[in-house]
Amino acid sequence: EEEFSFADHSHRRFNPLTRSWVLCSPHRAKRPWLGQVEVTASEERPAYDPTCFLCPGNQRATGAQNDCYASTYVFPNDYAAVHTEQPACSAESLALVAGENASSDLFRVESTRGQCSVVCFSPRHDLTLPELSLNEICQIIRTWKSVYADLSANPDIAYIQLFENKGLAMGCSNPHPHGQVWALSSVPSEPAKEIESLKAYRQTHISTNPSACMLCAYVRAEEDNTAAGEQSSRIVLQNESFMALVPFWATWPFETMIVAKHHVESIASLCEPRIADLAEILQGLTCRYDNLFQCSFPYSMGLHQAPTATHPDAACCHLHMHFYPPLLRSATVRKFLVGFEMMAEPQRDLTAEQAASRLRAQSPVHYKT
Amino acid sequence: EEEFSFADHSHRRFNPLTRSWVLCSPHRAKRPWLGQVEVTASEERPAYDPTCFLCPGNQRATGAQNDCYASTYVFPNDYAAVHTEQPACSAESLALVAGENASSDLFRVESTRGQCSVVCFSPRHDLTLPELSLNEICQIIRTWKSVYADLSANPDIAYIQLFENKGLAMGCSNPHPHGQVWALSSVPSEPAKEIESLKAYRQTHISTNPSACMLCAYVRAEEDNTAAGEQSSRIVLQNESFMALVPFWATWPFETMIVAKHHVESIASLCEPRIADLAEILQGLTCRYDNLFQCSFPYSMGLHQAPTATHPDAACCHLHMHFYPPLLRSATVRKFLVGFEMMAEPQRDLTAEQAASRLRAQSPVHYKT
Ligand SMILES: O=P(O)(O)O[C@H]1O[C@H](CO)[C@@H](O)[C@H](O)[C@H]1O
Ligand SMILES: O=P(O)(O)O[C@H]1O[C@H](CO)[C@@H](O)[C@H](O)[C@H]1O
Repeated sequence: EEEFSFADHSHRRFNPLTRSWVLCSPHRAKRPWLGQVEVTASEERPAYDPTCFLCPGNQRATGAQNDCYASTYVFPNDYAAVHTEQPACSAESLALVAGENASSDLFRVESTRGQCSVVCFSPRHDLTLPELSLNEICQIIRTWKSVYADLSANPDIAYIQLFENKGLAMGCSNPHPHGQVWALSSVPSEPAKEIESLKAYRQTHISTNPSACMLCAYVRAEEDNTAAGEQSSRIVLQNESFMALVPFWATWPFETMIVAKHHVESIASLCEPRIADLAEILQGLTCRYDNLFQCSFPYSMGLHQAPTATHPDAACCHLHMHFYPPLLRSATVRKFLVGFEMMAEPQRDLTAEQAASRLRAQSPVHYKT
Repeated sequence: EEEFSFADHSHRRFNPLTRSWVLCSPHRAKRPWLGQVEVTASEERPAYDPTCFLCPGNQRATGAQNDCYASTYVFPNDYAAVHTEQPACSAESLALVAGENASSDLFRVESTRGQCSVVCFSPRHDLTLPELSLNEICQIIRTWKSVYADLSANPDIAYIQLFENKGLAMGCSNPHPHGQVWALSSVPSEPAKEIESLKAYRQTHISTNPSACMLCAYVRAEEDNTAAGEQSSRIVLQNESFMALVPFWATWPFETMIVAKHHVESIASLCEPRIADLAEILQGLTCRYDNLFQCSFPYSMGLHQAPTATHPDAACCHLHMHFYPPLLRSATVRKFLVGFEMMAEPQRDLTAEQAASRLRAQSPVHYKT
């Protein structure tokens, strides 16, 4: 009788962080592709572009002028999604859009304040994260750490999201290497879900281990699996402090997670040696990404950690980063998470183990060097 | 003192179906766009394309030959994500990828069976849903109804998803008008969430109304709001049986929902007059979509209803369709739900009321006629 095989048979895997399922159809990568192909941005860029809103010393669309910065550079987003000051949402204003039903649970709404910033990773217009030196990447992490510390001290801020959109396919409108910070007066849906899951895990295991943590346990389990053999390994690379892996429940074809190997609530508690370790993993992972299809690999990435340093559930939080890259087959053929995925459930076309093994096989040296 | 205004100030709205929030930043549509522009497919297509895998009489990539169909046409997807027969996932096979941790709640997995079909909407290669006649659209709905009835009778099927991906931007690889059916041995995450919400709503209101339904209540509330004035209306069009509206909690810029105005569990119970009413709303909505930016408007759409006719919670389910179109500003500038949206919370750049008012303002007559 035929045996079930993860590499051949359709199955669903459960994501314990978001508590939802992903459908995995490993044979599906074989179908021919006649759909949209991605535009790849020109790889030839000048080190300085006088028309770029992010280059040192340049004037931005709104008239403000950038410093002549030489390392990282943080400035307010000129088109912020949230603002520091705005009126609270009154019952009267809600009644204008929800009429007499304004008090029903079908029309729940709240005013949101906050602030948005841009974090330039480097003055060099022509480089991207994987092309920066370890020292330069350390400086980005230190900048994140200080932005997080500053915003954590602001009583109006309940959540700080650090992220990067890289590449045209991920809605990035400027190739100058940069990320963003959106800090809000409330904790958004995704981190709220993760925190609930982390809290529930601790609660379930508290009798045997008062500091039980799902991600600590997951790191240990993936180390065991890797020790048991290459075939069951999802780890791409690791060092003493961090592990980059394709999670068992990954949705995007080459989705990865960088996770602290020891319990760390947030970037605020990273000492210099840990910062260097994170920089090494960031460089190693993004170089392998670029090498996979010999292109500047698009992705959205972001940090998940304690919402702020003083959040009541901070102790349950475990620092990690998600990388969601859209590419599936080549530099120009992406995965579309559309009809079935939007209506029903995310679906992937290769297993997490297959993706991890392909990423592991890449050289850690960037293809352009 | 300044008053809170939905059209000017950032706020979050709660989606009671999926129980998550969406961040709304209505002022953000004003920022300049320098990012990716969409490729628009050529609008000139022949009525019959000898190289198309979906045209009548043609041979498909796998060798099978299409019938010389004259109306709708259903055939098995040659690259199905799930198959009718496959082994169950044994503890031994799981141990191969999850080692000694296979029994932990971090490695939950299940085998998934099912079947996938393609539903051609018309033999004409050059038309799209909004360009079909009401009679032809009725025929599509009748086809959905019979596909749903057939699959509902299959004891191996727990869930039936009918959907359409339209346009290159939505991962559609063939412009021939068609949708898909993915039928599975388990209920996927999204509908499972919606069913939980509908059940919880009924439970909360059961003492005053034993057949309380969130979507019935929502339809009534939106009728009230519209009666109270244009400014608070999210309805795009309606007739006796169905309403098309931009839900209060919409995520995509021009996201809409078509919802049955009376409690209907599934497409299985639609009589001919209701089918004609749904066809009228489908045509009216998709024509307005095309007219908005004078292009073949891309979207993913799908039906949500009782998972199968015999599902234990079928009575709580309320037939509705979601349309998720990506475009934001023009035929070539879309909304990217990326970094912040993936890591934290969906974010939109105009209010549901603004989107509804723009769709309402479109002519119901297709721009090409
Ligand atoms: O089945 P198709 O049209 O080849 O493929 C399209 O729809 C599927 C179902 O939403 C997705 O999984 C694919 O990523 C998408 O390209
Ligand atoms: O802020 P940017 O880079 O202009 O915009 C990009 O990132 C934002 C945050 O993820 C998204 O809301 C936008 O849709 C995307 O185009």
